[in-house]
Amino acid sequence: MSKYKSLKEEAYEANMRLPELGLVLFTFGNASAVDRDKAVFAIKPSGVPYDDLKPEDIVICDYEGEVVEGKMRPSSDTKTHAVLYKEWDKIGGVVHTHSTYGTAWAQSLLDIPIFGTTHADHLVTDIPCAPPMKDEYIEGDYEHMTGYQIIDCLNERGIDYMDAGMILVGNHAPFTWGKDVAKAVYNSAVCEEVAKMAYLTLQINPNANPLKEALKKKHFERKHGKDAYYGQGC
Amino acid sequence: MSKYKSLKEEAYEANMRLPELGLVLFTFGNASAVDRDKAVFAIKPSGVPYDDLKPEDIVICDYEGEVVEGKMRPSSDTKTHAVLYKEWDKIGGVVHTHSTYGTAWAQSLLDIPIFGTTHADHLVTDIPCAPPMKDEYIEGDYEHMTGYQIIDCLNERGIDYMDAGMILVGNHAPFTWGKDVAKAVYNSAVCEEVAKMAYLTLQINPNANPLKEALKKKHFERKHGKDAYYGQGC
Amino acid sequence: MSKYKSLKEEAYEANMRLPELGLVLFTFGNASAVDRDKAVFAIKPSGVPYDDLKPEDIVICDYEGEVVEGKMRPSSDTKTHAVLYKEWDKIGGVVHTHSTYGTAWAQSLLDIPIFGTTHADHLVTDIPCAPPMKDEYIEGDYEHMTGYQIIDCLNERGIDYMDAGMILVGNHAPFTWGKDVAKAVYNSAVCEEVAKMAYLTLQINPNANPLKEALKKKHFERKHGKDAYYGQGC
Amino acid sequence: MSKYKSLKEEAYEANMRLPELGLVLFTFGNASAVDRDKAVFAIKPSGVPYDDLKPEDIVICDYEGEVVEGKMRPSSDTKTHAVLYKEWDKIGGVVHTHSTYGTAWAQSLLDIPIFGTTHADHLVTDIPCAPPMKDEYIEGDYEHMTGYQIIDCLNERGIDYMDAGMILVGNHAPFTWGKDVAKAVYNSAVCEEVAKMAYLTLQINPNANPLKEALKKKHFERKHGKDAYYGQGC
Repeated sequence: MSKYKSLKEEAYEANMRLPELGLVLFTFGNASAVDRDKAVFAIKPSGVPYDDLKPEDIVICDYEGEVVEGKMRPSSDTKTHAVLYKEWDKIGGVVHTHSTYGTAWAQSLLDIPIFGTTHADHLVTDIPCAPPMKDEYIEGDYEHMTGYQIIDCLNERGIDYMDAGMILVGNHAPFTWGKDVAKAVYNSAVCEEVAKMAYLTLQINPNANPLKEALKKKHFERKHGKDAYYGQGC
Repeated sequence: MSKYKSLKEEAYEANMRLPELGLVLFTFGNASAVDRDKAVFAIKPSGVPYDDLKPEDIVICDYEGEVVEGKMRPSSDTKTHAVLYKEWDKIGGVVHTHSTYGTAWAQSLLDIPIFGTTHADHLVTDIPCAPPMKDEYIEGDYEHMTGYQIIDCLNERGIDYMDAGMILVGNHAPFTWGKDVAKAVYNSAVCEEVAKMAYLTLQINPNANPLKEALKKKHFERKHGKDAYYGQGC
Repeated sequence: MSKYKSLKEEAYEANMRLPELGLVLFTFGNASAVDRDKAVFAIKPSGVPYDDLKPEDIVICDYEGEVVEGKMRPSSDTKTHAVLYKEWDKIGGVVHTHSTYGTAWAQSLLDIPIFGTTHADHLVTDIPCAPPMKDEYIEGDYEHMTGYQIIDCLNERGIDYMDAGMILVGNHAPFTWGKDVAKAVYNSAVCEEVAKMAYLTLQINPNANPLKEALKKKHFERKHGKDAYYGQGC
Repeated sequence: MSKYKSLKEEAYEANMRLPELGLVLFTFGNASAVDRDKAVFAIKPSGVPYDDLKPEDIVICDYEGEVVEGKMRPSSDTKTHAVLYKEWDKIGGVVHTHSTYGTAWAQSLLDIPIFGTTHADHLVTDIPCAPPMKDEYIEGDYEHMTGYQIIDCLNERGIDYMDAGMILVGNHAPFTWGKDVAKAVYNSAVCEEVAKMAYLTLQINPNANPLKEALKKKHFERKHGKDAYYGQGC
């Protein structure tokens, strides 16, 4: 029996949540879970429909994106996941989808403005849209560079990756992450819902203003602050 | 056995209707039911997914929002519910959701105009959007003040709370209420549908006019007047 | 046993299709079927949720909208159905819904332009939006006059009611009809889909042009002409 | 037993996927599969609801669109399918739907611009919208000419039909194709999703720019190039 059995199952369960939540069509998405002790992550194989996916199909890779165990080719986005695990040691899971509204914002090359408390309950900045990659990077190791495109964007904005949890990659689609892969899946659904609400807000009122500072602060502290009182404290 | 058993079950059933009606993602909503004789209300615990929720998890609180019975922390919006029960003695239930279209209107800081009879069958004014809270209130007892933000907005507009049944809290999301919690849930679904229709109406015709007075009056009286002939009279 | 048993069942089945097709929320719709020999029609009772509806609840009315058989109060829109059956002797069924996109067009007071063959396969004119009723009519026998509002609108446009099958009542919502109630239900779903497509078309291209005459004619004759070759000829 | 049994089943399965994928309302769509050895294709009968469809109802036609086997009249779009099979010898299946967003673009008479990688993973040009047919062709053999309308449009743009896989027919709706009918069904769902994303992109940012050349090239080669690494290589 594989020593990665439980890690594969965790990644499998997370991947199967994506179509349930309406976040993927066909194979347009992938979730991965990391084992920090073993320094490997488990990711969906490339191009396999969710209906056919089995826990044992999940591929195990190291932080360079090289396959450690598995008969199938891993997701074409594997190197992006690998870079994020290598550079961000607090994350336990990564999710990439082409969810409809998040992708539309990514295609528009605009950040998703923070218009309300639904957004502020999760992050208190706009959801950043990383600018398109330079041509020389695209022609090189594209998926590897996508990881750095994400990291550089957050660094330039001065946003802590654990405070963000989500980003749009320009002309592409959202990536999300969290302390574990279940949280990364959760963030993908939140990103899509917030993307839809922000789109509708601007259609209703093109001059809508972002949330004021006092409300951003309140909602962030209600959930994340030292006196947090949202949830059951676990 | 708890003396609040049937009240908890009523609140439980109402909460479970919210995901069925497509009004909540994850834990983004809560419903409560009041027992006027015992002067307590039953509300969803904070941050518990609907799939895991059981009737016995429901928390019993008094009109100050203090827990009377229950092992879990009540919804973070509990104090808003408490204020409404304390100030409005005819209501039997309160619902709060972040339903997509209602929230988009709340984020746009605009009232939902009364464009048709779907709206007029339920209330004959625009659905008010309460302005964002003053900073000093946000920094204070935020959820408590949200209750007064709702009450003040209706008072300023001269709208009877039993005629309204629903409001948008600016930059936040809808709150609804009714003679019982089932009616409050119903009003949440109506608010969302009316919000979607009004959004589409303005996209199709940015110069759309509100319903004329004679139609507002007719639809209101058809349902609520002394000669009401809609429904089975119960 | 009621001599209207099969008529009630036909109306019941048609009413139950409305929530299945996503055309109604709660009780916001009603379908009726006529028996021309008996000069009565069967219609949904007012305000009864679809989940609770049973065939024996269906109410039988005459062409004046008076109850002939049934314990419940008939739909509040009964007189509108009655007028259409009285004035249009070729129709076998009538449906009224507040379907989302059709209602949004009705609220915008604009006809739905004929932009493509999906529309032209069903009718070759714009879907008319009847203007709001005069105040003196609203204050009178409102639902009765709604029937004449529909009839007058088609007459003024010179449209044969059997060629139309659907209309929007301004500030209100769609009404549809057909040779039987199943066809009227079908037309309600077509009206909603065509309404959504036309809305999207204008969002994508505000200068979109209506279908050219040759295409209108071709699609109409393909389905309705003497050499019709769409469907199995029944 | 029919010698076309397996071909009929293949076409049947493909047709049944269309309502499952949300691409058709009622009978608004049809899928066909070809047998190159026998020089026939299997297509849905006209006007039969998907719920009633059985594998043995599927009609077998030759490349002129004439019925070879089957009791029912074939789809009214049969001659369009026939022309595509006759002229394009590498395709194994054709699908036509009136899917909502694809049809809205077709009604707007605009190509769907390539805004992101979701699109570029499938084709690296805009999705062409064939201009409306000349009146003399409409009045002639309409569905036959629709086939040539599609072929001419791709030729004029210099697009290889196997690189495209999908097109919009102006004022009408999408047609898609592929190496087999399963791929043609897949392309119909992709076309609808890409159409929705492009619509939303332009609503969010009316000045959104198409994907830059380096990204188009990268995504095309990642999936189709000689060093393709997407999918399991089969």
